[in-house]
Amino acid sequence: MKTLISGIDGFLGWPLAMHLTARGHEVSGVDNFSRRARVKEVGSWSATPIKPIEERINTYRDMYDFEIRFYEGDLMQNHFVDLVIEREQPDCIVHLGEIPSAPYSMIDLEHCNETMMNNIVGTNNILFAMHKHVPECHMVKLGTMGEYGTPNVDIPEGFFEVEYRGRKDRLPFPKQAGSWYHQTKVHDSNNIMFACKIWGLRSTDLQQGVVHGIVTNEMLCRTGCLEKEYNENLLTRFDFDEVWATALNRFCAQAVIGHKLTPYGKGGQTRGYIALRDSIQCMTIAVENPPDEGEYRVFNQFDECYSVNELAEHVVKVSSEFGLNAEIWNIENPRVEAEEHYYNPDCNHLKKLGFKPTYTLDDELRITIPKLMEYRKRIEEKSDRIMPTVKWRRS
Amino acid sequence: MKTLISGIDGFLGWPLAMHLTARGHEVSGVDNFSRRARVKEVGSWSATPIKPIEERINTYRDMYDFEIRFYEGDLMQNHFVDLVIEREQPDCIVHLGEIPSAPYSMIDLEHCNETMMNNIVGTNNILFAMHKHVPECHMVKLGTMGEYGTPNVDIPEGFFEVEYRGRKDRLPFPKQAGSWYHQTKVHDSNNIMFACKIWGLRSTDLQQGVVHGIVTNEMLCRTGCLEKEYNENLLTRFDFDEVWATALNRFCAQAVIGHKLTPYGKGGQTRGYIALRDSIQCMTIAVENPPDEGEYRVFNQFDECYSVNELAEHVVKVSSEFGLNAEIWNIENPRVEAEEHYYNPDCNHLKKLGFKPTYTLDDELRITIPKLMEYRKRIEEKSDRIMPTVKWRRS
Repeated sequence: MKTLISGIDGFLGWPLAMHLTARGHEVSGVDNFSRRARVKEVGSWSATPIKPIEERINTYRDMYDFEIRFYEGDLMQNHFVDLVIEREQPDCIVHLGEIPSAPYSMIDLEHCNETMMNNIVGTNNILFAMHKHVPECHMVKLGTMGEYGTPNVDIPEGFFEVEYRGRKDRLPFPKQAGSWYHQTKVHDSNNIMFACKIWGLRSTDLQQGVVHGIVTNEMLCRTGCLEKEYNENLLTRFDFDEVWATALNRFCAQAVIGHKLTPYGKGGQTRGYIALRDSIQCMTIAVENPPDEGEYRVFNQFDECYSVNELAEHVVKVSSEFGLNAEIWNIENPRVEAEEHYYNPDCNHLKKLGFKPTYTLDDELRITIPKLMEYRKRIEEKSDRIMPTVKWRRS
Repeated sequence: MKTLISGIDGFLGWPLAMHLTARGHEVSGVDNFSRRARVKEVGSWSATPIKPIEERINTYRDMYDFEIRFYEGDLMQNHFVDLVIEREQPDCIVHLGEIPSAPYSMIDLEHCNETMMNNIVGTNNILFAMHKHVPECHMVKLGTMGEYGTPNVDIPEGFFEVEYRGRKDRLPFPKQAGSWYHQTKVHDSNNIMFACKIWGLRSTDLQQGVVHGIVTNEMLCRTGCLEKEYNENLLTRFDFDEVWATALNRFCAQAVIGHKLTPYGKGGQTRGYIALRDSIQCMTIAVENPPDEGEYRVFNQFDECYSVNELAEHVVKVSSEFGLNAEIWNIENPRVEAEEHYYNPDCNHLKKLGFKPTYTLDDELRITIPKLMEYRKRIEEKSDRIMPTVKWRRS
């Protein structure tokens, strides 16, 4: 099948492109390299020295003779989006091409509006081009578990049966997003649901947990390499700064350079987590099992739930296996969020379609931490970018 | 108190400015005249020949010696918004300055994105300027009952207590908006709720029903005029075209020019309605009863509920009192919406604060229809703009 990936140069986009190609998909992708530029904007870089997209694609082609078509362009430019979709006629569009950072969106008004416009308009441009050129196409959209916030009830997958004053309905589950970025994902979800309703488009909205890990099997050297050795040209990015990194990534980086691990606030903030390879597995399942015409479905995409303190404790434990001596130091929380709360999200839809988690947090940490130790100098060089400066509350 | 009205040149903005001024508010306002331009864009105009804002303000000042300060500018320009709010230091901002048309947003991709960006960015710019300059200020935001859609349960005011799998929470009521325009109002609501949470701002989100009517008491001539005579310089707009008019406005215009009234589809679509003067009354109540710091509250703002067929029947009945012989002709529905559904929204919050509806639909029609008959020629001149051309479903 023909699969188009927006954001193919990103953390998830590149590993997904390799994986789908290896499974026989005809893969193409678009990117405007905004992630690279925006990480540079905040004075940081990826711990892994990632290669330009052309070099990634060429390396992969040289190894496996697989072709991946690449279009450089901005999803905000509707004529570009229209042209690519008309030309590629994809069966599925995996839409990862958004600004994905909560702290980035919280820097100031300009970053808030930039994130809003980029994500909303980019998604709308894809929806309209699908409607025009490929109305049977399936949009797999990357949302986030953060759309739901932390309600005091179980979190279903997108919809719930509710009884209210003696009457019943199946309603979208209310969203309570915790940053301007997370709000854009909620807005996208609403817009996509509406497009499916009026035009009969089909979409899977992945409410994904935090992805951890750094490698996939497609990054392994094929020949002339040791077992478990990775081709550096095929690595994906690993951000560790306050703006672009997850808490877990920051903890790993801190452990590697001998800094204290710094959970925000009490550290009871609990979220869903999933290993990079399992995220790729889930997206592949969604792509290969499209919904019906007009169907808007939501998959919660995570494996395990941990509090931030538990994450830090896992990093301490696993990093000690590699001779690192990490300590935990809870710091003032720059965000406005519940630090102790109920958290019980469903994750049934993907499992029914065959999702089997393969790597636990500890499994992945045992790969990630030694890998990061190879890049200790790159982390040390930007270590002043780890502690939080972007604040949620009134200044 | 100092009240700033965004969209002061609009259908609601101008009557509200006069009313609040008469009640002793120090009123200022901003507008970019986009409504005038956009109605012209679709080839139509207001049935009432509305005057430029300067002439409106000068007439009102000459009659009552009240001053209204006006700033011409675009809410999309954050420096403009910042400057006005810093200078005015308002106690309350009544935010009406959005693109308010469902069909306009459904014309094509450009109109969809334009409506999204205009409304979302404009609202964000105000929120950030409030946070910076007047964190105690109260934002009264014009939302719409259309944010809720037509769920099969009662519609509470913004939030509901829900029991789900044996646990309880107070959650935002799910939104199921029916056009790109309505989606922007949902996105705004989410963004405003978040701003109240993180910055302690206070806001009242008015989920308003369809407003009908054309006159307010402040438009009456003061001297040298007959009883119930209106000063033409003070009239507000009355749109009747397919893009900018409500169904009720179209029916009134059709009755006046002897066209059949054209409900869309089966005509069972039921909505909340409120007279213009009662809308002004409600907004005044919201302005004069601000919420607490950090509070985001939702008021459903309507008086009576009618189906589209019932509206048409009321127009037939009242217009016959003025010698008009109107007939109803249900046409194919260009929208995607339920044409028969449950509809039972709450309207308690405003009533608790003193809202007393004063004009029923028939009361208003008895004023509106003869008033429109004075402008029959203006309606006839643009009568080709009444029938629907903008379609919701797949083309």
